[in-house]
Amino acid sequence: MANIGFIGLGNMGGPMASNLLKAGHSVRAFDLVDSALQAIANEGGEACDNALTAVDGVDVVISMLPASVHVENLYLGDKGLLTAIAAGTLVIDCSTIAPASSRKVSEAAAAKNIPMIDAPVSGGVGGAVGGTLTFIVGGESEAFDQAKPLLEDMGKNIFHAGAPGAGQVAKICNNMLLSVLMTGTAEALQLGVDNGMDPSVLSEIMRTSSGGNWALEVYNPYPGVMEGVPSSNNYEGGFLVDLMIKDLGLALEAALDTGSATPMGTLARNLYINHRKLGNGRKDFSSIQQSFVEK
Amino acid sequence: MANIGFIGLGNMGGPMASNLLKAGHSVRAFDLVDSALQAIANEGGEACDNALTAVDGVDVVISMLPASVHVENLYLGDKGLLTAIAAGTLVIDCSTIAPASSRKVSEAAAAKNIPMIDAPVSGGVGGAVGGTLTFIVGGESEAFDQAKPLLEDMGKNIFHAGAPGAGQVAKICNNMLLSVLMTGTAEALQLGVDNGMDPSVLSEIMRTSSGGNWALEVYNPYPGVMEGVPSSNNYEGGFLVDLMIKDLGLALEAALDTGSATPMGTLARNLYINHRKLGNGRKDFSSIQQSFVEK
Amino acid sequence: MANIGFIGLGNMGGPMASNLLKAGHSVRAFDLVDSALQAIANEGGEACDNALTAVDGVDVVISMLPASVHVENLYLGDKGLLTAIAAGTLVIDCSTIAPASSRKVSEAAAAKNIPMIDAPVSGGVGGAVGGTLTFIVGGESEAFDQAKPLLEDMGKNIFHAGAPGAGQVAKICNNMLLSVLMTGTAEALQLGVDNGMDPSVLSEIMRTSSGGNWALEVYNPYPGVMEGVPSSNNYEGGFLVDLMIKDLGLALEAALDTGSATPMGTLARNLYINHRKLGNGRKDFSSIQQSFVEK
Amino acid sequence: MANIGFIGLGNMGGPMASNLLKAGHSVRAFDLVDSALQAIANEGGEACDNALTAVDGVDVVISMLPASVHVENLYLGDKGLLTAIAAGTLVIDCSTIAPASSRKVSEAAAAKNIPMIDAPVSGGVGGAVGGTLTFIVGGESEAFDQAKPLLEDMGKNIFHAGAPGAGQVAKICNNMLLSVLMTGTAEALQLGVDNGMDPSVLSEIMRTSSGGNWALEVYNPYPGVMEGVPSSNNYEGGFLVDLMIKDLGLALEAALDTGSATPMGTLARNLYINHRKLGNGRKDFSSIQQSFVEK
Repeated sequence: MANIGFIGLGNMGGPMASNLLKAGHSVRAFDLVDSALQAIANEGGEACDNALTAVDGVDVVISMLPASVHVENLYLGDKGLLTAIAAGTLVIDCSTIAPASSRKVSEAAAAKNIPMIDAPVSGGVGGAVGGTLTFIVGGESEAFDQAKPLLEDMGKNIFHAGAPGAGQVAKICNNMLLSVLMTGTAEALQLGVDNGMDPSVLSEIMRTSSGGNWALEVYNPYPGVMEGVPSSNNYEGGFLVDLMIKDLGLALEAALDTGSATPMGTLARNLYINHRKLGNGRKDFSSIQQSFVEK
Repeated sequence: MANIGFIGLGNMGGPMASNLLKAGHSVRAFDLVDSALQAIANEGGEACDNALTAVDGVDVVISMLPASVHVENLYLGDKGLLTAIAAGTLVIDCSTIAPASSRKVSEAAAAKNIPMIDAPVSGGVGGAVGGTLTFIVGGESEAFDQAKPLLEDMGKNIFHAGAPGAGQVAKICNNMLLSVLMTGTAEALQLGVDNGMDPSVLSEIMRTSSGGNWALEVYNPYPGVMEGVPSSNNYEGGFLVDLMIKDLGLALEAALDTGSATPMGTLARNLYINHRKLGNGRKDFSSIQQSFVEK
Repeated sequence: MANIGFIGLGNMGGPMASNLLKAGHSVRAFDLVDSALQAIANEGGEACDNALTAVDGVDVVISMLPASVHVENLYLGDKGLLTAIAAGTLVIDCSTIAPASSRKVSEAAAAKNIPMIDAPVSGGVGGAVGGTLTFIVGGESEAFDQAKPLLEDMGKNIFHAGAPGAGQVAKICNNMLLSVLMTGTAEALQLGVDNGMDPSVLSEIMRTSSGGNWALEVYNPYPGVMEGVPSSNNYEGGFLVDLMIKDLGLALEAALDTGSATPMGTLARNLYINHRKLGNGRKDFSSIQQSFVEK
Repeated sequence: MANIGFIGLGNMGGPMASNLLKAGHSVRAFDLVDSALQAIANEGGEACDNALTAVDGVDVVISMLPASVHVENLYLGDKGLLTAIAAGTLVIDCSTIAPASSRKVSEAAAAKNIPMIDAPVSGGVGGAVGGTLTFIVGGESEAFDQAKPLLEDMGKNIFHAGAPGAGQVAKICNNMLLSVLMTGTAEALQLGVDNGMDPSVLSEIMRTSSGGNWALEVYNPYPGVMEGVPSSNNYEGGFLVDLMIKDLGLALEAALDTGSATPMGTLARNLYINHRKLGNGRKDFSSIQQSFVEK
């Protein structure tokens, strides 16, 4: 069993740390929010006053933070964790951030002989609570192998995407494609409905034909076609429009860095931004369907 | 066994008629191209001098033509087939045409008590030869049930999409979505590669995640990732860019008719048109990948 | 002075016919709406019971109808006006319709030695009332020269765009470009405002730089920047979103006919359709600015 | 006359420094390229070994560098110019960089009581040589007033866009709109030509109608319509596709920072990137016309 320092106990980090405790690890935790700290203490974790204390003497450091700036501030600089973490300690950053940021921190860690992987997740709060997250990992194979058992205590599918930063790259490529699939599926369904088709019949035909995709398979955006998905629950819960826009922003940043053209992904981003401007930021991202429906 | 009049023996119609002969039906056939007529005669069909002769006394009429104008000209007007076909004869049009055209001909047939279905196909020349086509059918249930055994002699998956015209609608919705999937997959793969990823690793991660879709499953557009697909054969064969553009044009026509917004589909169409302008019209449609690669 | 048959007395056609009367011409008029007919009779026109009566014995026929289907139905067919109009009578269709429709009617007219021009207008209801419309004309030079003095009684700028249909082509190209200018201007202004700029200062800089365009010059879409334009009047009046979408549909139809790529115009169309779906169809088209503003 | 330190003597900076010398100012100059330094020395400037020497004892510092990173590295950090420049010395950065970078440097300068303005230019190499550049300035009014006479020695139009960074914002908004105008104009012209129109006639109609814009006025992208522009010279010279893509990247970065939707600008960027991939990076940006022409 490992001795883990865990930084960031939000909607995702909190249940991830809980699952590590349930698996028998010891967890020293830090978060800026007292109630989050108290909650993890109630489950047997050790609440620490600050991040430096949380990583004191641990075998593994795990962080789960909102954005690039938080991750850079946590690890880098005169008072950053990399000044305090012992050489050889495994560092796992589960935040979804810019690949460039991820590589920057990872290189700084490597310079101090601290093996670090980027391991962004998908699966949402439900996956975090249920321990069924998907981890997409960038980093050296040795570090990946070392991290894998721990990740399996929090998730189900663990991918090794490549070198440091590759976890971030793979996740944002996937989510950009997801936004394209979802928007494309929504507009195809609406075109069919506008031309007199039953959305369930059309969904089934496309699902089993060359239009088949994840949205048609398990996350149909048209209300009433599929049970137990956000579209049949007024688009509550699920993966928020705000978060999809965040990930599309990261994809676009990466495209800017490499001069890549991403016409479909940037169009989807713009459609999502216009959708959010109408007050849909906290809806599930499949609610883009509603932007195609005549009001 | 049925007595069938078959009009249109092109790349698709020819092998479809062959399969009907192999299944034991008798086929009276017509095409403007002599060699096509001769070929079907060699396989046991009866070559006719014109379309009217071909449908003389048959139980079922099947047509497979390039575009709306050909179908309208074949069936409608003073010398159209509908003036010659006996009431009660089942008519199956397998052409991919505008839903509005399909409904127009179907209504004219209904007015003469001729049951007619639209049954556009997918699966390409390979599917036509192998008898593994997918048929997406619009029309009354009774006509659909009557046609189904014949369609099964030419194909594998037979869908009933709804009322007359619905076969066309479902097919063009599917193919519009397909163009979006393919283009989105291509740009996501390229973004990953531009950011240092291995296209095979990224393909596998996205395929089993929420980016999963038909292209990643069986038709990966990135050269070398998948064997036996056009991308690994210099984009030869498969589903031509020219044909995808035709189907996207039909989708757009339908969207114009109903005032529907199809931002992703129309962007894909424009990207395909620019791709064709560089001389790629006769390449497989997954060659859109190449438009994202630095030259 | 000419003896004119005028068909279609709507928002545009009514004031156009009035201006012809004011210029001293005699006008025989027809419209399906009684009140419109009564209005023109009150101004000295002759109200006719049907279109055939209205064109009886006239020198010139002018029509102003909503869409391709109305124009084709008016002129073509067994009871169409072309069966009744004498050879040599000048026909001027001011409707904005598909170039293909325009050419079809024009060819039918030419076959009967009836010179016909397409002369779609811009300038809106205000231009129709004030006699300041712009006419963009397609047709033979002789017919254009003959029509010009009459068009000058209803408008200010008269362009000869080319052969029959060219008036329609030029108008829809212009309006597609207009939709692109307006949407591009709106998003550039919003990007500036979101980044802290004063919209008036930014408007003035771009107007006098390489971003200069008609919208910045006379029709600024940002509320409060320019007086006397729809954006400073809650987007009331002006050129309706519904009409812009109609014209973008015609542009797209033309693009489909010729296989042309129009990525910017089709994106603008889709943005306008989504904008209309939120209830903005009867707002001025510069209201697209509002789709970029955070709600 | 002022005593000026000038950093960056490239295609733009070189002739700008020359014009300052011609106006009678003394110029201490630095560039990494020896031949550029030698050239300015031949015209009466003082060639310095490094940037710190160049700004020694001057009244005004002017910099003209390629990108954000160069500007940040020049001014910030332990050896940055801001450690050497005397309080009260006016700093003018003419580079086109990210507004966020511009504000960062400007704030660091302000903290040392060094007034700084961002003054990106448009007008290209021709404008730099001829002294007819447009300067779009962000910064305090006092600094703007102080800089204006110097800017007038290098340019013709001097705009005050607002607070620090506003010069960058206004420039990238303008250039994003320019890319939209140009691409929209190109596709409208091609749609007209594909439908049988003469590009010169269509250009003239749109120029004087609501499609009017800077491209139609002075920079028509269709070969042969206008003399003396890049389109009539095989798209040589002018404003390079590579540079337009750089500016569109900056616009997109700014949009990412503020969460703004820029659908038209990002589509234009993607079309330009695909255009560059075919080898057109060093062509004038109006060459986007060629991507709409059938090959």
